[in-house]
Amino acid sequence: MSVVMLEKCRENIQKQLDNVVDFWLKYSHDRVHGGFFTCIGRDGNIYDELKYVWLQGRQVWMYCRLYRTMDRFHKPEILEAAVAGGAFLRKFARVSNSSGQWKCAFCLTRDGKALKVQRTIFSECFYIMAMDELSKVTGDKDMQLEAEQMMEQLIYWVQVDPSGLGRPQLPGEVPINSLSVPMMLMCLVQQITEGRGQEVSQKYKELGIWCVQQILQHIQRAGTAILENVSVDGSELPGCQGRLQNPGHALEAGWFLMLYGAQWGDKEIQRTAIRNFVELPYQYGWDKEHGGLFYFLDVDGHCPTQLEWSMKLWWPHCEALIAFLMAYNHTRKPELLEIFSEVYQYTFSHFPDAENGEWFGYLTQEGKVALDFKGGPFKGFFHVPRCLYMCERILDDLLENKD
Amino acid sequence: MSVVMLEKCRENIQKQLDNVVDFWLKYSHDRVHGGFFTCIGRDGNIYDELKYVWLQGRQVWMYCRLYRTMDRFHKPEILEAAVAGGAFLRKFARVSNSSGQWKCAFCLTRDGKALKVQRTIFSECFYIMAMDELSKVTGDKDMQLEAEQMMEQLIYWVQVDPSGLGRPQLPGEVPINSLSVPMMLMCLVQQITEGRGQEVSQKYKELGIWCVQQILQHIQRAGTAILENVSVDGSELPGCQGRLQNPGHALEAGWFLMLYGAQWGDKEIQRTAIRNFVELPYQYGWDKEHGGLFYFLDVDGHCPTQLEWSMKLWWPHCEALIAFLMAYNHTRKPELLEIFSEVYQYTFSHFPDAENGEWFGYLTQEGKVALDFKGGPFKGFFHVPRCLYMCERILDDLLENKD
Repeated sequence: MSVVMLEKCRENIQKQLDNVVDFWLKYSHDRVHGGFFTCIGRDGNIYDELKYVWLQGRQVWMYCRLYRTMDRFHKPEILEAAVAGGAFLRKFARVSNSSGQWKCAFCLTRDGKALKVQRTIFSECFYIMAMDELSKVTGDKDMQLEAEQMMEQLIYWVQVDPSGLGRPQLPGEVPINSLSVPMMLMCLVQQITEGRGQEVSQKYKELGIWCVQQILQHIQRAGTAILENVSVDGSELPGCQGRLQNPGHALEAGWFLMLYGAQWGDKEIQRTAIRNFVELPYQYGWDKEHGGLFYFLDVDGHCPTQLEWSMKLWWPHCEALIAFLMAYNHTRKPELLEIFSEVYQYTFSHFPDAENGEWFGYLTQEGKVALDFKGGPFKGFFHVPRCLYMCERILDDLLENKD
Repeated sequence: MSVVMLEKCRENIQKQLDNVVDFWLKYSHDRVHGGFFTCIGRDGNIYDELKYVWLQGRQVWMYCRLYRTMDRFHKPEILEAAVAGGAFLRKFARVSNSSGQWKCAFCLTRDGKALKVQRTIFSECFYIMAMDELSKVTGDKDMQLEAEQMMEQLIYWVQVDPSGLGRPQLPGEVPINSLSVPMMLMCLVQQITEGRGQEVSQKYKELGIWCVQQILQHIQRAGTAILENVSVDGSELPGCQGRLQNPGHALEAGWFLMLYGAQWGDKEIQRTAIRNFVELPYQYGWDKEHGGLFYFLDVDGHCPTQLEWSMKLWWPHCEALIAFLMAYNHTRKPELLEIFSEVYQYTFSHFPDAENGEWFGYLTQEGKVALDFKGGPFKGFFHVPRCLYMCERILDDLLENKD
């Protein structure tokens, strides 16, 4: 990719980000009950009024991050939307569990009544992200404290006793290190410590080290595979669960690790991140026939049991764009930019909807749009704008420091 | 379809049934720990050793039904496999819940340790089917009693108090009439009462009437749609959940209702079954472009949020074959046989694997094999052999009574 092409790419990414922000500002705000609609059809229509807490939290976080760090989004309407979204979450997302601990609901009715509670930590994670980032924008100390309290709760569930999550312990179950858990915690450590000074940074330092160690356990088979689920002592698990690969997820872990390595000046982690979590998942995860990243794979080549395994989803492509551009920016190895370019071509020729704006989320293996909505129970204002935001910033850095 | 074609069709179905029975006899039996492997790959390899209770129960039921009602399957090895599978289930499937009620696990380790418990009634349903049918073959009164006791537990959960299922009641939840619940109960009523005499039949008569009434509530929009979820008073629910259609499921309900109508001599129910639960789901559920039945649809034409909505699964096609052949046998209307023939052509040219035996389960919208295993967490020895068994018997009846 030449400098001219990088400039063109940056321009396109900026345009896409503006388009996506406009789309969600226009269609997603519930001006009656507060919070955000996330089930938004192809042309902006609301096809379901349920409010998913993951997506509410992510949208608040994304608005705040754009408001706080990019001049062209430092606008009152974005701040207001974030504050209103945060107020909705604080008022309705928390439900207490049978141990009297705070859990967050997974899904709320339009007017905020809890409809579903998952027995995992993820609603709480996105609640924390929203509260912490919002407190960074507003300076609200209460909110910051609340984020840290929820974080303590989360650490307790993950490291001490998960029973408050509500899953009964069964005799056949073995404890599992699932890649999503240390990834989410590491993301939260980066979120909570950013810009908070030495004391907070030191408080979470050990947790960060633990997260890295837990993530690195997923490098298996003499460094030739990233497996999604391993045992808590880092060995391979039997069956489908143990053989599962999720290339997009590994790529996301890759850029999380690169950020961690940059923060702590750890070059070895950065090398491992690029080799094992960026280059490798692309090698086994890219569809050589039709292009694009598979959603799930089985490391031994069996057919995954997930019906959607061969579909091309928007978010693994978002993670791949960030991961390869960041890896190139660290190393300036041209082959990493080559792959970025390949992912970029596939992504921008398949996912964005030129007609109605925003991106489609779900393609068939062959690249046809399989589900045509712009927002759904698991697709909100998050992966697309985060990717465009990260890539725009990295490209700015690259173009300023070209040599 | 001429008589010659019906004869050819019957011959093919018989051959397929023999092939499928052979496949499961050959590959699925765990001779070390008992029970059945159900994760069986394309060529018969076991790719996961977990044992799914739904599928264990269904396989016991199917073996017994074939043994009991078809001469060519009245063989010791089939009886032995059913008895061994039943013993595994009785020993390991039941776990008690926090209210001290019997729940069945959803999934067990190879050696029978509970790994997952669902907060629904379906594991228990297939446990009952297995125990009752096995007691019909073996004459074991204890087992029959156990099936009836579990049935009482189930009726209590559905009609009186669901809290034993383990789902906390949340303020945003409304009680729902989901088509699967009255369908399963109706199927169990037919199972438990069959051949048990007047007393048992009378005992469950009211429950049968309740099931019919609950199923008929799913006829919505002035008779133009079957909706998968309705409110408990039979009105439409808001959002995606309320608009969801599952054509294969409606077709299955159709033949359950036809059987009920035949048993009680209720011609009105039979007409409703054929019009609303057989002809109608085919009209909206058949893919006019590529053939085959969609898995999920939205009654207003929105895109469903289930990623697999447009895939062609084996089991809706199995249900459609039974439903149309039974409807034709009742009415002798040639257009019903025409549709049977269309479904038959699609099914037999897409699902069976001529090379390694058994059927593929999951095709893309265009009809390409998307997942190539023969058994998985939700595909066992059930829909295919039940369909072939039912169709063979109906075809025998048709060919004997041709006029």
